[in-house]
Amino acid sequence: MDFNKISLEMHEKMKGKLEIKSKVPVSCENDLSTAYTPGVAEPCRKIHANKEDVYKYTSKSNLVAVVSDGSAVLGLGDIGPEASLPVMEGKSILFKAFGNVDAFPICLDTKDIDEIVKTVKYISPSFGGINLEDIAAPRCFEIERRLKEELDIPIFHDDQHGTAIVVLAGLINALKIVKKDIKEIKIVINGAGAAGISICKLLMLYGAKNITMCDSKGALVEDDPRLNESKNSIAKVTNRDKKTGALKEIIQGTDVFIGVSVANVLDYESVKTMNKDAIVFAMANPTPEIMPDEAKKAGARIIATGRSDFPNQINNVLVFPGIFRGALDVRAKDITEDMKLAAAIAIANIIKEDELKEDYIIPLAFDDRVGKEVATKVAKVARETNIARI
Amino acid sequence: MDFNKISLEMHEKMKGKLEIKSKVPVSCENDLSTAYTPGVAEPCRKIHANKEDVYKYTSKSNLVAVVSDGSAVLGLGDIGPEASLPVMEGKSILFKAFGNVDAFPICLDTKDIDEIVKTVKYISPSFGGINLEDIAAPRCFEIERRLKEELDIPIFHDDQHGTAIVVLAGLINALKIVKKDIKEIKIVINGAGAAGISICKLLMLYGAKNITMCDSKGALVEDDPRLNESKNSIAKVTNRDKKTGALKEIIQGTDVFIGVSVANVLDYESVKTMNKDAIVFAMANPTPEIMPDEAKKAGARIIATGRSDFPNQINNVLVFPGIFRGALDVRAKDITEDMKLAAAIAIANIIKEDELKEDYIIPLAFDDRVGKEVATKVAKVARETNIARI
Repeated sequence: MDFNKISLEMHEKMKGKLEIKSKVPVSCENDLSTAYTPGVAEPCRKIHANKEDVYKYTSKSNLVAVVSDGSAVLGLGDIGPEASLPVMEGKSILFKAFGNVDAFPICLDTKDIDEIVKTVKYISPSFGGINLEDIAAPRCFEIERRLKEELDIPIFHDDQHGTAIVVLAGLINALKIVKKDIKEIKIVINGAGAAGISICKLLMLYGAKNITMCDSKGALVEDDPRLNESKNSIAKVTNRDKKTGALKEIIQGTDVFIGVSVANVLDYESVKTMNKDAIVFAMANPTPEIMPDEAKKAGARIIATGRSDFPNQINNVLVFPGIFRGALDVRAKDITEDMKLAAAIAIANIIKEDELKEDYIIPLAFDDRVGKEVATKVAKVARETNIARI
Repeated sequence: MDFNKISLEMHEKMKGKLEIKSKVPVSCENDLSTAYTPGVAEPCRKIHANKEDVYKYTSKSNLVAVVSDGSAVLGLGDIGPEASLPVMEGKSILFKAFGNVDAFPICLDTKDIDEIVKTVKYISPSFGGINLEDIAAPRCFEIERRLKEELDIPIFHDDQHGTAIVVLAGLINALKIVKKDIKEIKIVINGAGAAGISICKLLMLYGAKNITMCDSKGALVEDDPRLNESKNSIAKVTNRDKKTGALKEIIQGTDVFIGVSVANVLDYESVKTMNKDAIVFAMANPTPEIMPDEAKKAGARIIATGRSDFPNQINNVLVFPGIFRGALDVRAKDITEDMKLAAAIAIANIIKEDELKEDYIIPLAFDDRVGKEVATKVAKVARETNIARI
């Protein structure tokens, strides 16, 4: 199917994908007096007396802003805030469909870090959480860090953490099949942007000891002057042998390849040099780092991509609706590393051990157990770690 | 009915009044590929190539931000952004119910003029128009002026212009009944905040020549050092006799009293000193400047209030949904004085001459001809004056 054509026609016909609806009737004078003046003054007074009551009487309790500056949109790059709107609307309707979270796209006409941080802070009274989206690295790291410090609502950069969580979920299950231990395997991550770095951190938190990261110029080695601050920080805790060289050297003798880079950068010969029972997550979109059949021929045992037309789709939609659902349900102050790990494990555990197989390590996007299970486990951990406010 | 109690219970039960819904299906892989990746890239590319296409492919075309800093909310005053949310949600659902405009509440955690202007500019890519709401005077004037200069979407401060338009509509019809000419009557406006000043300007634009404005300290006289800049500006073009004194002196021998002030400031004796066939618009909420029966006894012929339980309710809901509907329909760059006058005349003309009577000068809130007629006339004037872009 030509999704470009179908999608363009649908967007034009519908004039966008979102609408704002009332949950209460507005069809007579009494309705007006209840939903608006004079009755509305009473919830206003309550919230004025106790600010926390804003969660009790308004839509803030279920509202997430999908915030982007349009600087790193899909594979399209820096296309600006207006052109990013169809993606942010799409994300918003996925929040609703998969997590019953009301989400609203805020596309910002600035790329300045200070201005983005201030703007999100200023508009935050309307929202129960902030999902940062498609903001270029390394700016996205500082924006997220500062917002997490300064606001007491959950902040989550999906390109980083959504991807990291679903990759970890897939890897947990892949390792069950090949019977390898996360602590003992060698991993190479190709792509050192927002997603790559976040994947690396979460895998280490889960126990991975031996990761080497590559970007288009090869392995990241600490204190290499070519590295920016975020790449150098991650280089300090990875690649402890200080290996240098291109991906095709670095990949030799590894157990896992994780690609968040560009089409076709991984070849048959390179996969052949990996260890037995190799795991290849080739997530470049729309064309993977290596096509699944090619990777298989070269000896990879388990292969995942970002695409829905191959098995094992690494899809963030398994994460963000449920993680925000859980965070909002307990009015979490933050989305912590513990909550991210809980989400990954919950996704992995949806598939029972006897159902697991090489082409089914990740639940399907429309498996409706996922959002609920992620929400439940995330909320539980938030409560146990005093991140929840109710 | 105890609307405070009913409203509080309803707000708690529903957890706010808004939800964000998808206009397109999200129930299978093909839906995802159309509404989200990969298909969504195509409208993104189109908008990147031609920014105006954002109106063609996104919800911006029908989306208005209801922006407040919570500094002048109803009669409650400066209650802050969180406590203003129930009002802004209420306003948003009225936009939908009366104008089929999607509106979203943005409550800002700053009262700084520069910061508010910048924040609204930064978030403007998501919106087709901005409705400013419940921002205190005189700050609201500068915020609106600067946003109108700097953005090419309609900006409308409803507390000023919505009120002014419906007051003018009511006055047009009241003058038909008493057979007086706007150019010849004497008007006193009590209350020199955002609404009072805007009413004064619009009445003058429609032809009023003799207006005196009062605030709580009495008549505004030009260059009186006690006046702030916005009050002094309006004093320079009103009260040309430079009368001084309290409302009860100023009201003597006038034809029209317009109150946007506080409860019970107008007494029986004062109304008695007005000219024959006096018109009294006592719009303080919830208790008017004078109760209608009292004004009637004192000789007023036509009385309007802000309340739905008396005849002639001066209600902004007659204005803002239709004026934005019209502006959005033709992608207007602005909401101009011509468009405001067209809206007022459209509202007045809903009531045919033979239906007009003392207690029916303003259409009812639920008269569904109003929004459509206002939209049609506003769009027509926008086209005729080159404010429309389509």
